[in-house]
Amino acid sequence: MKISNLDLGFIQMAFAGMMTLLSFGNASAQEKNQMVRMAKLVIDPTQLENYKAILKEEIEASVRVEPGVLTLYAVSEKENPNHITILEIYESTEAYRSHVQTPHFLKYKNVSKDMVKSLELVDADPLVPGMRIK
Amino acid sequence: MKISNLDLGFIQMAFAGMMTLLSFGNASAQEKNQMVRMAKLVIDPTQLENYKAILKEEIEASVRVEPGVLTLYAVSEKENPNHITILEIYESTEAYRSHVQTPHFLKYKNVSKDMVKSLELVDADPLVPGMRIK
Repeated sequence: MKISNLDLGFIQMAFAGMMTLLSFGNASAQEKNQMVRMAKLVIDPTQLENYKAILKEEIEASVRVEPGVLTLYAVSEKENPNHITILEIYESTEAYRSHVQTPHFLKYKNVSKDMVKSLELVDADPLVPGMRIK
Repeated sequence: MKISNLDLGFIQMAFAGMMTLLSFGNASAQEKNQMVRMAKLVIDPTQLENYKAILKEEIEASVRVEPGVLTLYAVSEKENPNHITILEIYESTEAYRSHVQTPHFLKYKNVSKDMVKSLELVDADPLVPGMRIK
C-alpha cells in the first residue's frame, strides 16, 4: 500500500480529531461525578456577623486545601441578610465525604451549631456542567 | 543622608508591599461593583426539556460573548426538577443592563415566557467576593 503525503496529513488530522473527542469525553465523565448542592440556612440575626466570619474562614480553608472542593459560593440575601445560600460543588461524592471530616469543617460545625436556626440541603443537577466564574 | 544597601533593600521591600496592598485594593473595588443575584424559577413540567434547552443556549451565548457576564450557574433540584435556580454574577450593573438588551437574552425571554410559571429575583451579597469555580 502506498501512503502519500496527502494521506498522512489526513491521518494526522483524523487522529487529532479523535484525541479531541476523547478528551471531551473524559471531561464530561469527570463532570458527571460532581456533586452539586444548595445549602439554605437561616441564621440567628443576633449572631449573623459571628456566623459570617466563621463561615468565611471555613470556606477559604476548604477551597485552599481541598482540591476536591470546587467551590463554596455563599451569598446573603439583601432583603433578608440572615438568609444564606451556599452553592456547593464537589469533584465527587468521595471529595464531599472527605470534606466533612476535615478539622476546619468540624470546627465550623461545632462553633456554628447554636447560630444556625435552620438548614435545608437541596441536591441539584447543573444545567451546564463545567460552567466557571470568570 | 547616607543610604546603605541595607536601607535600599528595605525601601524596595516596603515599595513592593505597598504595591501589593494597592493592587488588592483595586481588585476589591472591581468586585464591589459586581451584581450578584439568584433567579428562582418554577417551570411548567410539561415544558421542562424545551425550557432547559433554550436556557442552556442563552447561558452559553451570554457567557461566550459578554465579558461582563461572569457566570450564570443554573441548577435543577433533584427532587423538584422543574425548580430551577440560577446564580447570576455580573461585573457591574451596567453589564447587567447591557445583558438584558442582547438578542440572545430577548429571544430567550420571548420563547420561554409561556413555560415559566413563576420567577423570583433575589439580590444578594457574596460572602467571599472573587470566589471562583476550580
